[in-house]
Amino acid sequence: MYDVRSVLTPTREAGRALPAATQAFEQVRKTTLALARPLSAEDCQVQSMPDASPVKWHLAHTTWFFETFLLERFDPAYTPCNPHFRVLFNSYYNAVGDKHPRPQRGLLSRPSLDEVLAYRRHVDEHMLAALSLQGGQSREFEALVELGLHHEQQHQELILMDVKHMLSCNPLQPAYQALPSVAWPDVPAPLRWIDVAGGIGVIGHPDEAGFAFDNEGPAHQALLRPFQLAQRLVTEAEFLAFIQDGGYQRPELWLSLGWDSVNANRWRAPLYWSEGQDGWTVFTLGGPRRLRAAAPVAHLSYFEADAYARWAGARLPTEAEWEHAVRQHNGPTPSPDANLLDTGMLQPLAAHASSSPLAQATGDLWEWTSSSYSPYPGFRPWPGAVGEYNGKFMCNQYVLRGGCFATPASHIRVTYRNFFAPEARWQFSGLRLARDA
Amino acid sequence: MYDVRSVLTPTREAGRALPAATQAFEQVRKTTLALARPLSAEDCQVQSMPDASPVKWHLAHTTWFFETFLLERFDPAYTPCNPHFRVLFNSYYNAVGDKHPRPQRGLLSRPSLDEVLAYRRHVDEHMLAALSLQGGQSREFEALVELGLHHEQQHQELILMDVKHMLSCNPLQPAYQALPSVAWPDVPAPLRWIDVAGGIGVIGHPDEAGFAFDNEGPAHQALLRPFQLAQRLVTEAEFLAFIQDGGYQRPELWLSLGWDSVNANRWRAPLYWSEGQDGWTVFTLGGPRRLRAAAPVAHLSYFEADAYARWAGARLPTEAEWEHAVRQHNGPTPSPDANLLDTGMLQPLAAHASSSPLAQATGDLWEWTSSSYSPYPGFRPWPGAVGEYNGKFMCNQYVLRGGCFATPASHIRVTYRNFFAPEARWQFSGLRLARDA
Amino acid sequence: MYDVRSVLTPTREAGRALPAATQAFEQVRKTTLALARPLSAEDCQVQSMPDASPVKWHLAHTTWFFETFLLERFDPAYTPCNPHFRVLFNSYYNAVGDKHPRPQRGLLSRPSLDEVLAYRRHVDEHMLAALSLQGGQSREFEALVELGLHHEQQHQELILMDVKHMLSCNPLQPAYQALPSVAWPDVPAPLRWIDVAGGIGVIGHPDEAGFAFDNEGPAHQALLRPFQLAQRLVTEAEFLAFIQDGGYQRPELWLSLGWDSVNANRWRAPLYWSEGQDGWTVFTLGGPRRLRAAAPVAHLSYFEADAYARWAGARLPTEAEWEHAVRQHNGPTPSPDANLLDTGMLQPLAAHASSSPLAQATGDLWEWTSSSYSPYPGFRPWPGAVGEYNGKFMCNQYVLRGGCFATPASHIRVTYRNFFAPEARWQFSGLRLARDA
Amino acid sequence: MYDVRSVLTPTREAGRALPAATQAFEQVRKTTLALARPLSAEDCQVQSMPDASPVKWHLAHTTWFFETFLLERFDPAYTPCNPHFRVLFNSYYNAVGDKHPRPQRGLLSRPSLDEVLAYRRHVDEHMLAALSLQGGQSREFEALVELGLHHEQQHQELILMDVKHMLSCNPLQPAYQALPSVAWPDVPAPLRWIDVAGGIGVIGHPDEAGFAFDNEGPAHQALLRPFQLAQRLVTEAEFLAFIQDGGYQRPELWLSLGWDSVNANRWRAPLYWSEGQDGWTVFTLGGPRRLRAAAPVAHLSYFEADAYARWAGARLPTEAEWEHAVRQHNGPTPSPDANLLDTGMLQPLAAHASSSPLAQATGDLWEWTSSSYSPYPGFRPWPGAVGEYNGKFMCNQYVLRGGCFATPASHIRVTYRNFFAPEARWQFSGLRLARDA
Repeated sequence: MYDVRSVLTPTREAGRALPAATQAFEQVRKTTLALARPLSAEDCQVQSMPDASPVKWHLAHTTWFFETFLLERFDPAYTPCNPHFRVLFNSYYNAVGDKHPRPQRGLLSRPSLDEVLAYRRHVDEHMLAALSLQGGQSREFEALVELGLHHEQQHQELILMDVKHMLSCNPLQPAYQALPSVAWPDVPAPLRWIDVAGGIGVIGHPDEAGFAFDNEGPAHQALLRPFQLAQRLVTEAEFLAFIQDGGYQRPELWLSLGWDSVNANRWRAPLYWSEGQDGWTVFTLGGPRRLRAAAPVAHLSYFEADAYARWAGARLPTEAEWEHAVRQHNGPTPSPDANLLDTGMLQPLAAHASSSPLAQATGDLWEWTSSSYSPYPGFRPWPGAVGEYNGKFMCNQYVLRGGCFATPASHIRVTYRNFFAPEARWQFSGLRLARDA
Repeated sequence: MYDVRSVLTPTREAGRALPAATQAFEQVRKTTLALARPLSAEDCQVQSMPDASPVKWHLAHTTWFFETFLLERFDPAYTPCNPHFRVLFNSYYNAVGDKHPRPQRGLLSRPSLDEVLAYRRHVDEHMLAALSLQGGQSREFEALVELGLHHEQQHQELILMDVKHMLSCNPLQPAYQALPSVAWPDVPAPLRWIDVAGGIGVIGHPDEAGFAFDNEGPAHQALLRPFQLAQRLVTEAEFLAFIQDGGYQRPELWLSLGWDSVNANRWRAPLYWSEGQDGWTVFTLGGPRRLRAAAPVAHLSYFEADAYARWAGARLPTEAEWEHAVRQHNGPTPSPDANLLDTGMLQPLAAHASSSPLAQATGDLWEWTSSSYSPYPGFRPWPGAVGEYNGKFMCNQYVLRGGCFATPASHIRVTYRNFFAPEARWQFSGLRLARDA
Repeated sequence: MYDVRSVLTPTREAGRALPAATQAFEQVRKTTLALARPLSAEDCQVQSMPDASPVKWHLAHTTWFFETFLLERFDPAYTPCNPHFRVLFNSYYNAVGDKHPRPQRGLLSRPSLDEVLAYRRHVDEHMLAALSLQGGQSREFEALVELGLHHEQQHQELILMDVKHMLSCNPLQPAYQALPSVAWPDVPAPLRWIDVAGGIGVIGHPDEAGFAFDNEGPAHQALLRPFQLAQRLVTEAEFLAFIQDGGYQRPELWLSLGWDSVNANRWRAPLYWSEGQDGWTVFTLGGPRRLRAAAPVAHLSYFEADAYARWAGARLPTEAEWEHAVRQHNGPTPSPDANLLDTGMLQPLAAHASSSPLAQATGDLWEWTSSSYSPYPGFRPWPGAVGEYNGKFMCNQYVLRGGCFATPASHIRVTYRNFFAPEARWQFSGLRLARDA
Repeated sequence: MYDVRSVLTPTREAGRALPAATQAFEQVRKTTLALARPLSAEDCQVQSMPDASPVKWHLAHTTWFFETFLLERFDPAYTPCNPHFRVLFNSYYNAVGDKHPRPQRGLLSRPSLDEVLAYRRHVDEHMLAALSLQGGQSREFEALVELGLHHEQQHQELILMDVKHMLSCNPLQPAYQALPSVAWPDVPAPLRWIDVAGGIGVIGHPDEAGFAFDNEGPAHQALLRPFQLAQRLVTEAEFLAFIQDGGYQRPELWLSLGWDSVNANRWRAPLYWSEGQDGWTVFTLGGPRRLRAAAPVAHLSYFEADAYARWAGARLPTEAEWEHAVRQHNGPTPSPDANLLDTGMLQPLAAHASSSPLAQATGDLWEWTSSSYSPYPGFRPWPGAVGEYNGKFMCNQYVLRGGCFATPASHIRVTYRNFFAPEARWQFSGLRLARDA
């Protein structure tokens, strides 16, 4: 069986800058293709829910980004591959014009996967020519290329999220690919509380410090009280105890909207868990497996993370607390031993003796915070169409921090703000407990 | 471009029996494959609405029918290709067990199209072996094979319906394949009224007269009043006049539920019609084309057919009237010059001087009748699981008669009862006017 | 407690004509008020579902009918009570203009009940003046008055249906009023089959024979086969046996849409039945009571009636069979001992030795037939706005025959066609079995 | 016409404590009745949408609070008025047991309004007896009485919100009551920006400072940057300019979910605005009136407030900014001249020369902030069932500050946190602009 790891470049440089533009472009584009390689044309066609997209669409949309924001704007001689693609593969940029409706992305059997791959090659050729242009390109061009690459890295993670959801809908329960075999401890490491000192901390990404999304800035001061943070993520065994203690039947543990979700969707366990004759099974990118005590529990909604924390006598950290604590204990750059996409593990691992006091703070699973996704003081969206990238989504979503096993190492930062609606569960989300000092 | 007609067998024997079992089996199975051949793996994957199915599913389900009702029952040594297929490809037979939910057929990227084609070959081999068995098979076996072939012929028409709908959802407006070029008259033949004598007629299919579905019997007497029937179908030009006369804005022309549908779905024209800068376009299996005055109007709901008839000062015939008139004027067997699947036209044609007084009564388009789909007096469903074939759908559906250009010639009969919900429009449905004498 | 019976006029003249116009007008209008008298202003305000209307709305709409179709049209000096009422109290007459949306009838706290009662008095005064006009009124005027009175009688039955549904939604389970005490047999009379001779029967209402709705004509011949009809309605004990035999869990007993309804709505018993610690309770206009073996089972959907019949090895009669049988055995006029609104029983009674071979064929409960509601051969809707009365509803509804305990005696006829959607259950519907001879 | 103002007690003591318990109890309970007095039994019955409740339900639920949390708990001899009321009038306290479903509150015609008023008298008598008990009651009892009164004051405002919505659904556009006549300036006061100094401010309500809801504490430090706040609310004329500038057609002005709301609900103006032949009309508690240039614009969703601010080149304040600014400029107690319920104005007024620099900061209209409703650092819900009062709603809601013309003067505080979902518009919500310094 084809192994995604054979193509992933083990850069081991979480949070570092991407390499020089041409090399970065080639590497990012190649990685996207590598992620699609274990999949058939049929696999790449299916849209399993309105929130997910077909892999074929991801392959085309990331290409559309370069065609629309770079080639069409900066290369007067460029002819679009197909004028319909401007609409078909626009995600949500109103400034660019019409959009094919999101829930109908899976209806587009044409262009075929082969045609989309040809579209990628067409745009790649023109982009590489533009990148190698004698005399260089403008600063704006370079900035948009960098944005386009980080954009594509986000879609790399989305591809794995969406493929997993699609495969889980199939009663055959097929695997994306075999996962590397890993030794699992029988029990998780005991939970320890790390003290975090309070005071005024600096949160967010300074302008001058390399690429970041607009929503990560401005860097600003925040006043924090001392508190404690768990040294690792909550595990499957711990979450099972919550279930067995009636966690999903006790309204006093839940936010009101969370309790509505539990009942409307008949939640009884995290997404991808199912109970059979002989215990619980968890569906993974490698297919179904038995529950593993030490594995971090994944695919929680905000509601489930919040309810678990309440049950455990703890709470979620705010995003300022999270960033402050990680800076204080792990430092401003991601751990070099983080389990990110480049490890090829394709799953969260058990917490191990880590080079950082707060284990798993980068990689493994995104960590829910209690913070609603909102603008930092003085936030200004990017000018132009890419100003629609982040700001307009700052409502009814909650922030997750830290990246996961599907996040490229060159994509994550300590200031990185991911966000999902509180009922969403198909992202690779986990939970680290906090409590007042 | 691949041409479906190169494989379709021009049997020219509408309404005649299928040939001897083995030959019939090979021919029907081959035709289904031929219909899928212009399509990619992606095309065969998509389910464009809950009422439609992916072509891949049609290919598998028609195979499942032979595996489940023939091989598993009559061949003790037979091993199912894949035990999950029993559930995945069951359409609606509760007696057979669980069913994969209909609206989720498009989520099954696995088995792949190639695997489904291998499934077909596997079952074909075993079926052909069983059909050639020394000493022959039981009468029940033979009857079920015949049923399985007629079942597959129904799915041949469904494949074309569902593919057309899927392609129409794509802004690229792709063709299924190029249509044969046909000379079109500028105007339709003038509408003439054919007198039909009343009295007691015999309606339905007698037991002893070869294959028919259970819902076509028993043959029985019906009392009819004299009436008149148009000699041809209503055309696109005529329907355009209805639109231009405000047909879709005048509640007095519509059934109450029809008026609700007009408003809820914002109907302004038949399905697949769209109005542009320079007039109306009609989407066909050959892609979009301009409106054609003499072409029979297709893709009408029952509501639209009924409203048009009211506007025209006429009405729909009952199904007893339709059958009585066709027997009286065209005789008990379908016209040899009917435009059915075997002509390869893949579209309804203009009415021409026909060998039959009631032109287009077989083929071209199914004709809406005013009759609710209900059991004939003395109706008995088939025994066993196949008893779910027809009877349980006899509620809130209306009968269409006569077959269409996508109906195999060996599949249609003067007694054939097709049926759809009154709001359905994706079937190849047209309209012939009737009026009281 | 106020007793509706004290005002109901026991005319005992089922199916006979209404008395002379003025007397009829006064009697019908008074009866409507009598039905509302046990109810508070709050009771008259509530709309418990989109299919039901507030009693206050019924009181106003029946008045609107006379104001709109009689006073406004025939009395040039008439000034409408309130010009907004033309819209607020229009039910479904597109020809009259705009309509307040049906599901929002319960939002109209104004006009108050008192104002609606004043509206009734205002219109009554003008109508009585018009009816007593020297020299009489036109034939059209008289016909519309007669129609308005029959229209109001239909709403009398609707008031009881809708009030019952509204009260059933209240956990207090309040009664509309105490029911008269009746002696109930412990077991139902044994079911007997009555032979019905076939042949050509006359169905429907001849023009010259007094008032009928347009949908009851034209009278026409129908060809019928001999069959058998049960001498009484199916009872609660019999229906309980169906439940206990797993009737609601066995898909093979149900139409496909019926099985969908069972699952979507979690039907486990007829409407208003509930199972408690010590058996089944049935909610009635007199409040909850224990199940009664001999009571006719009420509040069945078409789907439940059809499934029960299939389970019992029988079927529903067609409406032509029903009318033919009743004419043949009971004669063309309703039984004088029928349990209709005028008896004040307000509930269906056990079948008793009846003056008619087919007991309960008039009154007690409406009887589902297997016939889709469709136009009779040669049907012509009334001219003008009242042409919207019946014809536009002839789709996806099924016919019920015979009237019920809430139908006024002067309102019912052997040709009377009632109709409801197959999933509707809040009407007073029961079931009489038929089978082939 | 009855005038609500004749009963409202003009306490003029915004933000001050309620008077001694017995007097406070009598006053609050009397005020609730006064608000219901202009309404008929029908008016009090209707529930115009799932988010609103019938006035009758408010009258009963506020009584249920005292019965359930005081009388049943502290008076062993107390017998509940009706055991069903425990379920019927429970709003959302899971710890108390079952609840009648919220969207079905309008279906309860029984108990009648008269019976609910008797229920109030019954509970009032027992409460007054308990309050006058020799030797006094426990501290917990007293605290729960105080909570119950503040709870009832919240429902006083809800009554006016819900009544207004209900009346607006009626095409007759009836008034709740005539509004006092007020002189209106032709144009609003010019908008001025007030500088607010940054630094560390104290936000929230200290434990020892009298009654507050649990969500207002703990008092805590917050770090704030200098900014500016408008001296008054945005007006109808200003909002009209936004509409006329295409505000509702320009996606770039909206949050993504806001743009979805605009399209799904076809918003074109604030709730209760309608455009007619001769300009805009605004529906008020006094019925419809013409748009008034200087009137504060009301009934905005969070989405509309946010879009307007973006269009105006400004933003919403955070709730910490709002409280900090009001403390800095207006001081810690509400302005004595605030337009609250006790003025009887029943509408927001034009900003006038105010005793406070930030005019209208108390009263007139609630002011949207950009802050998601979330717990303050160290937040602890109250123990017991009343712990469900606030905390469980801290998700997907946004905070509003300052009270409105429908808020009782003894109910508002500078720390008061109101909250609604971002799409809600039926509350009395307005908008004050902020911008970075």
